[in-house]
Order: sequence, then structure tokens, then C-alpha cells
Amino acid sequence: MAEASAKNGHGAAKGTSNGRARIWGGIDLGGTKIEAVIVDARGEVLGRARHVTPVKGGPGEVVKELYGALGDAAQTAGVEPTKLAGVGVGAPGSVDANSGTLAHTSNVAGGWEAPYPLASALGDLVGGKVVMGNDVQVAVAAEYKLGAGRNYRSVLGVWWGTGVGGGLVLNGVPWRGQGAAGEIGHMVVKANGARCGCGRRGCLEAYAGRAAMERKARAAVKQGEKTILFDIMHDKKRTRLASGVWARALKEKDPLATRLIDRAMEMMSVAIASVINLLDLEAVVIGGGLGSRLGMPYVERISDAMHPHLFSTERNPAMHVAELGDLSGAIGAALLAGPQM
Amino acid sequence: MAEASAKNGHGAAKGTSNGRARIWGGIDLGGTKIEAVIVDARGEVLGRARHVTPVKGGPGEVVKELYGALGDAAQTAGVEPTKLAGVGVGAPGSVDANSGTLAHTSNVAGGWEAPYPLASALGDLVGGKVVMGNDVQVAVAAEYKLGAGRNYRSVLGVWWGTGVGGGLVLNGVPWRGQGAAGEIGHMVVKANGARCGCGRRGCLEAYAGRAAMERKARAAVKQGEKTILFDIMHDKKRTRLASGVWARALKEKDPLATRLIDRAMEMMSVAIASVINLLDLEAVVIGGGLGSRLGMPYVERISDAMHPHLFSTERNPAMHVAELGDLSGAIGAALLAGPQM
Repeated sequence: MAEASAKNGHGAAKGTSNGRARIWGGIDLGGTKIEAVIVDARGEVLGRARHVTPVKGGPGEVVKELYGALGDAAQTAGVEPTKLAGVGVGAPGSVDANSGTLAHTSNVAGGWEAPYPLASALGDLVGGKVVMGNDVQVAVAAEYKLGAGRNYRSVLGVWWGTGVGGGLVLNGVPWRGQGAAGEIGHMVVKANGARCGCGRRGCLEAYAGRAAMERKARAAVKQGEKTILFDIMHDKKRTRLASGVWARALKEKDPLATRLIDRAMEMMSVAIASVINLLDLEAVVIGGGLGSRLGMPYVERISDAMHPHLFSTERNPAMHVAELGDLSGAIGAALLAGPQM
Repeated sequence: MAEASAKNGHGAAKGTSNGRARIWGGIDLGGTKIEAVIVDARGEVLGRARHVTPVKGGPGEVVKELYGALGDAAQTAGVEPTKLAGVGVGAPGSVDANSGTLAHTSNVAGGWEAPYPLASALGDLVGGKVVMGNDVQVAVAAEYKLGAGRNYRSVLGVWWGTGVGGGLVLNGVPWRGQGAAGEIGHMVVKANGARCGCGRRGCLEAYAGRAAMERKARAAVKQGEKTILFDIMHDKKRTRLASGVWARALKEKDPLATRLIDRAMEMMSVAIASVINLLDLEAVVIGGGLGSRLGMPYVERISDAMHPHLFSTERNPAMHVAELGDLSGAIGAALLAGPQM
């Protein structure tokens, strides 16, 4: 259904002959929250909603919550969710875009070991076709089309959060390889280096992922090291060292937080420089919870730290912070469903 | 001139209206030797010649020798070099394909600091247009079209020799980035690791390049370590540890050679796995002097060593040795000039 109405129209008409509006829904499924947006043909956000990701009930509950978030976003935009021209979902883990299934999504609780037909389950509720994509890849595509990457043809997106994800746009086209491309977080920055959450050694994520840094912070505290990280965490009523916790600790010059973030940035610079030496891209966009939170001062420090590793220093890539913030994933998911820009 | 005759014909006619044959010349300019080939429209080698790269006289002498090698190759193919439909040159260093200039080619002796108009200088001798490309990129393109990569759409080529070069074909198209892509040898495999010949730290080439390994071998001998590497070098009347020297020392189980090559392969596996995690390619082709000489047993060991680093173990890339041997560069240069396959 989405395809006909999305591709035929260059006019600004809000309705189409089949009763579908030229607006689209996008949902970003995260481990802790679900972001939903409604966008028009230019990618403008007409409505949005945020729900908490269910931790019980497995995939069935998650699908209901995705639909709930979409409905709320549609309501803020003044539209029925069943009138959307198409719906896209960005999700972590193994997304099979062709079959519309999701598997191995370790960040979302319960029941995703076998591929789950998320697209058709949500499609039944929406009453239309649902398309799926990898969460980071769609977020990078959104930044490429509408955000910090819009002035470039070839862009690396680095999503710096609990883990470190990546997405590539090469000469205007998202690069997915055989389907699993973009794992910059599992590029090896130090042979035989630190153990990563994935079980391998020396991955970028083992140094720069928020989860890995939290493990190191907890280990340091056990060794008797002082830090205000966990005090801030309790103040903020969090159980994890969220991005805001790190930002506050850095602002207060906590030595442990500073050391861990410095190390993370050093390894980010190594990995990104390696990608540039290999692919010679025009620009890098850094997003994700931590990337967006720490912002340009930290991206500039990563940029400076890349210099000693760049082979062709005449053409340094432009370095940017993601511009669409928390919504890049949901907007990117919506773009996947329809608006042809 | 090349373009008209190369693009118009699907027929098997050997001549064209302007008197040019549907055959092309390709030259691979290396630090020690110049390889020239004559190929037909299917890339078949009709003639070949090898000359020694002049070490004196600068760019002017090199151009004369390129022309001499081309002439000899043409003679073995029974054709006048002035009758070629086009000529391509693959060269190390900074090749500007648009202006046809070569600069910073540290592997070729003397006088390349400023960009030198190699294409027009050789074109004056040949009496026609000469196109240029990066030596490794054209070699990888040849392997993609005619060699070990011919059954794949997306291929990484790793040229393992004095240095470690790389080339990418993504979905059937050579990827050059802004012109300098492919520097897998300067991807960082170990943050703050060994000093590389390029001045940076922890590059793949600092562990796996033949020049770097030779430096380490010489340092080990100074420290009193025993090795037959330099005896073999003298036996073979070489002044450098050429690929054949390494191959013989490995065959004789020389401990130092074994240790240095093991380390090189470990780092090769780290870098290649990182590329696969980022790009999810179908195949890897390993060529270059050392890669071709050591061959499949060593490529299989690199493949095995990649496993612990691969993120998506369901889709391991196919691993191959380059099939066109010493001629991949020259054939690739010829392909650059014309044959549309």
C-alpha cells in the first residue's frame, strides 16, 4: 500500500485515491524506550510520542507497545494510524528487511532468539505494510538526508551509546553489504586488547561502549577508586550510568569518568581514522546517546585525536554531531517506509 | 581515441576505422620492475615484457623505460605500440587520474616530489591518450574482472608486499572515495603499537609489510638472534629480503622468519576482519609479492585467524589468492584504458 502512494505523487495533496494520506509513521525500538514519529513527504515531524519498552511479555507485548506509541504520535499529528501511507521500524539486532523479522536483539528483553515476524505482526494492527531496518542504519540515513550529513555524498555515522554502532552512506546509497555492514564497534582497535561484551578482544566497543565503560567503572570502585559517577546515578534515580550521568561527572572533572571517556575517545579516533584511511569519506556524523549528549566539544577532540592516524592529511573528513537528536532513528524508520527525497 | 573504439564495438573486428586495433596496452610501474602487457577486448594477454625500473635519471628516464617495455610487449604480440587503442599505467604513490600526474611515489627513485605529468609524457611517445590509476586499485580491478574475484560483486583486495596496499570493489564498482581510498595498510590494528614506515603508530603495515619485517629482522640480528634469512638473501644475490627469501626461510622453519610472518598474519587477520565487520563483503583476494608467493596455505591461516574477530560468523567472506600473479597490475592498467567487460 505504501509504495503506490509514496512513489506516484509529486503533488502536495494530503490525500490519495485509496484514502491514505501522504504521511508516514516511523518507530525506533530501543532497549529502554520506543520513539514514534509521524512525518510528511519532506520528512518534517508532524507528531511524536515516546513509550517505555516493555520488559515482560516478549515480542507480543513489544508489538502492542509499538502500535501504542505510533497511535499516540498519530494523535498528536491529528491523524488516524490506519491512514498512514506506510510505517517503518528501526530495531537493534538482526533485522531481515526482506522477511520483516527481528532476531538476536540482546538489547530488548525476552523471546527474540528465533526470528520474530515483527513487520507482519505490527502490520496486522496498522492495517498495512510495515518495513524494517537496522536502527543505526536508518538513523544514519536520516542524518544523511535531513541532518548533519545532508551536504555530503559519502558519510560514516557512528552511534555512540550503550554499544557503538555504525552506518555508511556511500555515494548517496546506504551500504549494507550482505546485510550486516556497519559494525564499527567491532572493528579491532587493539589486537589482543580488552575483552568486549561480544566475547571478542580489542573491539572499539570494549573501550568506548557505555556498557563497557560502566563495567570498568564498577571494577575500579571495587578496587577502591573514588568516583562521583554512582552518586550522580543515584541522584538521577537511574540504575545504569546513562549518558547524562557521564556528562555530569565530566563537567565536575571526576578523574575516573575523565580517564574512561578519554580512553573511549582515543579508541574512537583510532577506529574512525582507520575507516577514513580505508574508505576516504567526506564526513563523519557522531550520534547516539553519548555522542549527542557530549556534543561538539567532544567530537572536536575525537577529530584532533584522529589526525596522527590519518594517512591522507590533505583531505580530512568533516566531523559533525548528529542533528536530529533522539528522533533520528524514528525519522529514519519513517523514511524507510516511504517519502522519496 | 581509445574511447570511441573501446565503447562502440561488440563485434570481434580487429581494426577500427581510425586504424587503431581493438587491443590495449597496460603497464605496471613498480619500484624495481616495470611489467607491460598487451591485451585484447576480453583481457587476454597477447604479449608481455618486463623491464628494470631505472634508478637514475628521474621521471624522464622512467617514462622512456615505460615506453620501451610497452614496445617490447607489443612486439611479442606482433603489433605496433602506436596502433594500440589505448594505454593504461598503474603506479604507486599519489596518482591524479584526472590530470594524469604522479607524485609522492616513494617506491620509485628520484624526482617525484612535485606532480609529474606522466600520462602526457608517455602519451607523446605512444601517440595517443594514456590513462592512469593507482597500482593496487587497478590490480584489484583486474582480479575482480578476470581473476579470483570474478564470481563476486563486492571484494576487498589486499596487496601484501613491501607495504600493504588495498583496493575495494563495492557492488561492482571500484571504490576510490575522494581518490585516496584503500589504505588498509594504514588501518590501526594496535593503538599505540609499533612505529610504521609512514611515521604513524600501530598500522597494519608496521607489522605485515615486508620492509617493516626486514627492519625487525635486522634489529633482531643486531641483538644476536640467529636466522638464515640473510644467508638466503646472499645466496639469491639480493640486497633485500624479497618474498622468495621469506618463503625459503619459512620452508626451512627459521624461527625468526616464522615468528615475524606469524605476527604479520595475525595483524592481517585483525585488519581484514575489521574491514569485513564494517563492510560485510563477499570475498577477499590476497595478492602482492608476498601474498602470491606464500599462496593458499597462508591465506587459509589468515582466514582461520580472522574467525575470532568476525562479528557475523554466519557469512564469512570467501578467501582467495590472486590468480593473475605478477600481471594483475599491468592487466588492470590495460583494463583502465579500454576493454569494456
